[in-house]
Amino acid sequence: MKTIRDPIHNIVQFDKNNDKLLLDLIDTQEFQRLRHIKQLGLASFTYPGAEHTRFAHSLGVTHLMKRFIDKICSLKEDRFIPYIKEIGEHRSLALSAALLHDIGHGPFSHALEKTTGVRHEKWTIAIIQGDTEVNSVLKKYGINPQEVVDVIQRTHPSKAVVKLLSSQLDTDRIDYLLRDSKMTGAGYGTFDLEWMINVLTIGEHNGEIEVGLDIDKGISIAEDFVMARYYMYTNVYFHKTTRSAELLIDKIFSRALELYNEGNIDLPDDLVSILTRKGQLHETVANYINLTDNTIWHFVNIWTNHNDIILNDLSSRLNKRRFFKSINSSELDPLEYWKRVIEISNKYGISREYYFLRDEAKSSSYKDSYLIQTPKIGEEGIEREASEQIVLFDKNGNGTELSYISDIVNGLRNKKISIERYFVPDEYKNEIIGGYQHV
Amino acid sequence: MKTIRDPIHNIVQFDKNNDKLLLDLIDTQEFQRLRHIKQLGLASFTYPGAEHTRFAHSLGVTHLMKRFIDKICSLKEDRFIPYIKEIGEHRSLALSAALLHDIGHGPFSHALEKTTGVRHEKWTIAIIQGDTEVNSVLKKYGINPQEVVDVIQRTHPSKAVVKLLSSQLDTDRIDYLLRDSKMTGAGYGTFDLEWMINVLTIGEHNGEIEVGLDIDKGISIAEDFVMARYYMYTNVYFHKTTRSAELLIDKIFSRALELYNEGNIDLPDDLVSILTRKGQLHETVANYINLTDNTIWHFVNIWTNHNDIILNDLSSRLNKRRFFKSINSSELDPLEYWKRVIEISNKYGISREYYFLRDEAKSSSYKDSYLIQTPKIGEEGIEREASEQIVLFDKNGNGTELSYISDIVNGLRNKKISIERYFVPDEYKNEIIGGYQHV
Amino acid sequence: MKTIRDPIHNIVQFDKNNDKLLLDLIDTQEFQRLRHIKQLGLASFTYPGAEHTRFAHSLGVTHLMKRFIDKICSLKEDRFIPYIKEIGEHRSLALSAALLHDIGHGPFSHALEKTTGVRHEKWTIAIIQGDTEVNSVLKKYGINPQEVVDVIQRTHPSKAVVKLLSSQLDTDRIDYLLRDSKMTGAGYGTFDLEWMINVLTIGEHNGEIEVGLDIDKGISIAEDFVMARYYMYTNVYFHKTTRSAELLIDKIFSRALELYNEGNIDLPDDLVSILTRKGQLHETVANYINLTDNTIWHFVNIWTNHNDIILNDLSSRLNKRRFFKSINSSELDPLEYWKRVIEISNKYGISREYYFLRDEAKSSSYKDSYLIQTPKIGEEGIEREASEQIVLFDKNGNGTELSYISDIVNGLRNKKISIERYFVPDEYKNEIIGGYQHV
Amino acid sequence: MKTIRDPIHNIVQFDKNNDKLLLDLIDTQEFQRLRHIKQLGLASFTYPGAEHTRFAHSLGVTHLMKRFIDKICSLKEDRFIPYIKEIGEHRSLALSAALLHDIGHGPFSHALEKTTGVRHEKWTIAIIQGDTEVNSVLKKYGINPQEVVDVIQRTHPSKAVVKLLSSQLDTDRIDYLLRDSKMTGAGYGTFDLEWMINVLTIGEHNGEIEVGLDIDKGISIAEDFVMARYYMYTNVYFHKTTRSAELLIDKIFSRALELYNEGNIDLPDDLVSILTRKGQLHETVANYINLTDNTIWHFVNIWTNHNDIILNDLSSRLNKRRFFKSINSSELDPLEYWKRVIEISNKYGISREYYFLRDEAKSSSYKDSYLIQTPKIGEEGIEREASEQIVLFDKNGNGTELSYISDIVNGLRNKKISIERYFVPDEYKNEIIGGYQHV
Repeated sequence: MKTIRDPIHNIVQFDKNNDKLLLDLIDTQEFQRLRHIKQLGLASFTYPGAEHTRFAHSLGVTHLMKRFIDKICSLKEDRFIPYIKEIGEHRSLALSAALLHDIGHGPFSHALEKTTGVRHEKWTIAIIQGDTEVNSVLKKYGINPQEVVDVIQRTHPSKAVVKLLSSQLDTDRIDYLLRDSKMTGAGYGTFDLEWMINVLTIGEHNGEIEVGLDIDKGISIAEDFVMARYYMYTNVYFHKTTRSAELLIDKIFSRALELYNEGNIDLPDDLVSILTRKGQLHETVANYINLTDNTIWHFVNIWTNHNDIILNDLSSRLNKRRFFKSINSSELDPLEYWKRVIEISNKYGISREYYFLRDEAKSSSYKDSYLIQTPKIGEEGIEREASEQIVLFDKNGNGTELSYISDIVNGLRNKKISIERYFVPDEYKNEIIGGYQHV
Repeated sequence: MKTIRDPIHNIVQFDKNNDKLLLDLIDTQEFQRLRHIKQLGLASFTYPGAEHTRFAHSLGVTHLMKRFIDKICSLKEDRFIPYIKEIGEHRSLALSAALLHDIGHGPFSHALEKTTGVRHEKWTIAIIQGDTEVNSVLKKYGINPQEVVDVIQRTHPSKAVVKLLSSQLDTDRIDYLLRDSKMTGAGYGTFDLEWMINVLTIGEHNGEIEVGLDIDKGISIAEDFVMARYYMYTNVYFHKTTRSAELLIDKIFSRALELYNEGNIDLPDDLVSILTRKGQLHETVANYINLTDNTIWHFVNIWTNHNDIILNDLSSRLNKRRFFKSINSSELDPLEYWKRVIEISNKYGISREYYFLRDEAKSSSYKDSYLIQTPKIGEEGIEREASEQIVLFDKNGNGTELSYISDIVNGLRNKKISIERYFVPDEYKNEIIGGYQHV
Repeated sequence: MKTIRDPIHNIVQFDKNNDKLLLDLIDTQEFQRLRHIKQLGLASFTYPGAEHTRFAHSLGVTHLMKRFIDKICSLKEDRFIPYIKEIGEHRSLALSAALLHDIGHGPFSHALEKTTGVRHEKWTIAIIQGDTEVNSVLKKYGINPQEVVDVIQRTHPSKAVVKLLSSQLDTDRIDYLLRDSKMTGAGYGTFDLEWMINVLTIGEHNGEIEVGLDIDKGISIAEDFVMARYYMYTNVYFHKTTRSAELLIDKIFSRALELYNEGNIDLPDDLVSILTRKGQLHETVANYINLTDNTIWHFVNIWTNHNDIILNDLSSRLNKRRFFKSINSSELDPLEYWKRVIEISNKYGISREYYFLRDEAKSSSYKDSYLIQTPKIGEEGIEREASEQIVLFDKNGNGTELSYISDIVNGLRNKKISIERYFVPDEYKNEIIGGYQHV
Repeated sequence: MKTIRDPIHNIVQFDKNNDKLLLDLIDTQEFQRLRHIKQLGLASFTYPGAEHTRFAHSLGVTHLMKRFIDKICSLKEDRFIPYIKEIGEHRSLALSAALLHDIGHGPFSHALEKTTGVRHEKWTIAIIQGDTEVNSVLKKYGINPQEVVDVIQRTHPSKAVVKLLSSQLDTDRIDYLLRDSKMTGAGYGTFDLEWMINVLTIGEHNGEIEVGLDIDKGISIAEDFVMARYYMYTNVYFHKTTRSAELLIDKIFSRALELYNEGNIDLPDDLVSILTRKGQLHETVANYINLTDNTIWHFVNIWTNHNDIILNDLSSRLNKRRFFKSINSSELDPLEYWKRVIEISNKYGISREYYFLRDEAKSSSYKDSYLIQTPKIGEEGIEREASEQIVLFDKNGNGTELSYISDIVNGLRNKKISIERYFVPDEYKNEIIGGYQHV
């Protein structure tokens, strides 16, 4: 038994016989790389404790997946038999998908996706399908890598397996909420995991398989869970300092790319191939897996001495934590903001592209906006529409959607958490908002 | 009020007026650099949660220093008046020293010190005394940087202040035990901090000022604290996997240095200046503070493709977590070990220097060996002998040393935790210990 | 320093000099009696851990009152000066009121109030005003007992002091939510007390003094707090098993009183005086304080052998935990319920008064219904209308009521938690609901 | 599934089919009676949170017994097969014994045993063997009550089952340490239960079956466990205030019995039969199960008005928490103590028997003295000698006793925690110790 201590789940174990596939996947260089990708990107600038990695999170999701499967397989009623059978047959697949679901995350998670134009989900697919150790290990144990991709993409025919990994109540979300809450020390976002697993069930609702909770014993924990997400978004994920840091790293790499295209900067091959080539991922997987948070920090550090004044300045700001300051859209009318920005940038000769930024953070608390975007034409590998509901099942297996019976959740339903902010250098903030009275 | 959430202390606060000195010190690039130095170096290979940084730890120690000072200053009896006055006068000094006590830590803490031959304490001094932002901020607020150094080095005339930062029961140790315990998830090493502060006191014992505990209410918490250290050493700090990783990084940089001296590798200036120059630290401070864990990982990553077979191999092992395996000295007689190593290394043509390692981890659980080493002749800046005792004071201020009244602590007294191990590549382990029966 | 360990607040302390008044109040027989009055009455039949007493709760509220006062007195802005002065002058009064606010609770809290027709608040007043040790101690320390009563009744002119003890965000409620949550093990109802105290403030809103929270940092904790109450009501306070037990004890004493009036039972003087005399409390205070949960259990135990078949049976049911079973009003139409009850009670010759019960549990989650009832004409000592809001203050002291800015709380606003249930003996339940389909 | 929330184990569950025996045992009046017997007797006078009952503890032990059995039955190696088979065959027996092991506890646990001269273990046997509901339920499910007694008495031939309930590392002790620690809020005595169960094993050592721990992973948790007991004894179980309260209740009942024998007091039949008859328990079981803490408190309350001056005074002292004060034997030489007591008692005419008491609290921290007393000749039902060791097993099943490999435990080994104290009324304490200097 391989035993790992974890600040969230305490004891995480892998059986040296039954879980050999998982242990081999963990030992691949692609998975070991996740040790160097922080779960919350730059949030540790706001919450110094939030240094936890995608590595620890992925182990946690796999641990939860085991507990979910065990719980469902322990259910006795007849109506569970088809799911139990289905899940039993796909156990290794479900656990592999849980372990690998974030394998494509790059440095600073979402922050760099803007510059590269490639979402981490695509890299996940490329790594699992590509000429990688992960791919070999899966095949060696008779798992079709494409099936793992299908589970992660939500296109796998076994909806029961898909829903365990991504739905409104899934192992991924449960782990990251608990982990992010504890590591940030934010004081919100916890719920009683033991009770949730205790009342966990699975069933059909509106013709879809759903992971759900017992309706008599599960309403309060379901509400707790929805609240937990809501709190983490408003207090942590959308925190203005973190957003400011993410904008900065995005701008630093936009600038580096611009300089590279002009022939004014040396960049290592790995970075070049990621920053410049878009779309044909399979050729650059080998480059991608060489990139970690460490690489980025190394170059940001070096660029604090670069002779391009913008790259130099932006890098120094990140390094010394002199982030741009936020202006809430409620503080200043957008039109007025841009008018003043134009004045000031002209007056001081500063680049508007790099120094006067706009940010819109949004999610719904109960709907997952990031899971329900319409695929663009011709784009492959985009996630399908996710289930939007937490379902509560009664003793006869009849499902009711949470917002029908919870005033709290109903109050939040379809309320988007959306924050529009401008970010500007500290030294210009007063000049921008000065003398302005929002009416 | 600047508020920071922390997984250990929950709320850490700095007053925007009273603590302006501290806030400015935090904003220096030398202190911000600690965000990129992990508290436990390579221990996250053993405990994936242990990603916490010297940055968070230093804030924690400063927070505790405030609480200690407040507690002592709230004590009413006459006998405390001189200490209260002394501590009151040195408040800013004590807090600055708490914040900066680890500012000289380099990448992978103790692991790289072997290669460079310079201990982090010397860098701490060099940074505080040097031409740095930290030095400027201190002076700006009328704090003599040398005094901060004196407190950290334990040579400051105010023993009361010194003991708050480093003694058997100090703010540094309390924070790191609690933090390391929680972040590793190791399940040991916790104690009731609130109770400890509640029974905290200060007094004189054998002519020395001591931070101590109330003898009636403090024995059990003192025992808990000694146990906590003991557990963390045996379960975490001396863990064989972590030690193996630390040996590997040491060997990687020894090899890189060797190649550099032979003209066979390019190294960046910062790294060269640290690896090659020993002793004259003040000239290389600017280089040193450019080095973080990120730099090291970046080069280790690159060196997995280096054409030196040893550097290449060692770097790949670290990157893919293929550490050397340990052999306990109890498993194999030292002479026999070396005999076999010579045979095998000759047979396969492998470098003994880089592939067959010996490690001795030691500390006493109640004595701090690292604090009591005799300074070598001519060496400046080495720490003086630390107090070796936890003192319990009765109502009249009479002190008794813990081991006199605690069977548990007495059982541990002067028992060194000392583990001697050999580390060898996995592929040779069986050949080395094969057929051997330790008598 | 008198130190008490507490599972909720860890360390609760009373200074032997400054808090001598409180220590003397704790030592009175009226306060010591609270050791024998459980906080949650019969809830331990549902949650076996919920054995905690009014004694521990009252200490907890006093501890919190100290922390609240200290926090408010540490606030620096000018606008707090009048409140700080006011609170400073009434410190002993506020702490005494915190300690004594539940001194009038009788056996099984609310359960016996129905039989006696006297609410515990009236007994609280009678004990503080009466010829009691508590009254003497207050006078001895120069505290006017009537002022303590006024604070508890919310009629004291210092609204600042009143609001600390009873408002939407008061020390009483905070302690009982945290304590009840932890002791029941219910898994709901916790919130981050340290953060709440950190963002605590006081100010004026709509011409009323209010205990409130910082609007920037306090919204989420305010929501957490409202949720905590909501969860505890739905999961714990209104739990059907507890309500069933409470109805049973009410009926047992109704029956005992009936038998007493018929001359068919011996009752001790203390009990007789409480059960029979209503209104003139001051004459019976001495009897009242002899009554604890122990007395009641003693007689219930004895009555399991009484020759009155109803008293005997009801007492045995309580003793052996054979409570009546609940029927939700949603399961059975009220008219249909009573029709069937009449049939069945006639058929088997069972008393409808004692065996077929109706219960309506209600509270609003955000409004406190029990604090806002209109005083009946001529009734003295009833509480006045409580503040209905949690107020959030901005930096300029402008208050905003929580439900204006919280979707969650707004969703709950004025939603009453109201559960109507019937309780019937197990053996008749099926016959009552049998064959019934609610449309 | 019957689900119970518990502050220690969170979720305690009994399957409505598989655990029907246990659910029926819980519903007996003898088991329900444990709701009214506090686990720590009078310790709530010292720790106000310590109101938890034998009822909750017994459920906790049963829950742990299930977890222990499940863990052992999940072990795969061949050497466990005989134990797994043995335990599997005795599952219901083991769980019944766990649930019923404390069924004989009377009011105030150990305190009243002195007066009655009958230990609670004998009542446990009498209740299980007697004409009781518990006895009927066992028989109904085909469990021989005598076997349950044998397990509890440690005379059952299945040592594996016996050791799960009482040994150095048993389910009883684990539950009470964790529960007492949390409920008192004492801050000591916790350990990582999940890890303990994770490394739990069973094997043979010196020809005895032992519940033990994995030697590689279990040493630190074993040390934690021994420390936990040590801390709870020194800080909680032997606390002078609790001991003083226990002496008082003992003396109150001695006095009541004396008055009864003189015909000067009315006592209820149940109490008389317990206080006067010794040895022939089976005839008085029906009386015994009518006695709970409530009964005793009821009479103590009444006796505060009794005309016997001693009974009246002692009862009042208990009721108002005016306990006798302790004098440590280290403060005063025994001979000197008795000399002074004789003087003072003569001078003021006070009963030495009731007012000048001696108490000796003892246990060894690692040996369980109460389990190893030699049975007196002719006494039946006394417990046999318990295992004295915690055994650590290596991979081959070879056992090593903890104190051989733990310096901490070795330091405590055979060190008795023994505290000798005198207890005297507050008003005479100064006169007794006045002017005395212990040499």
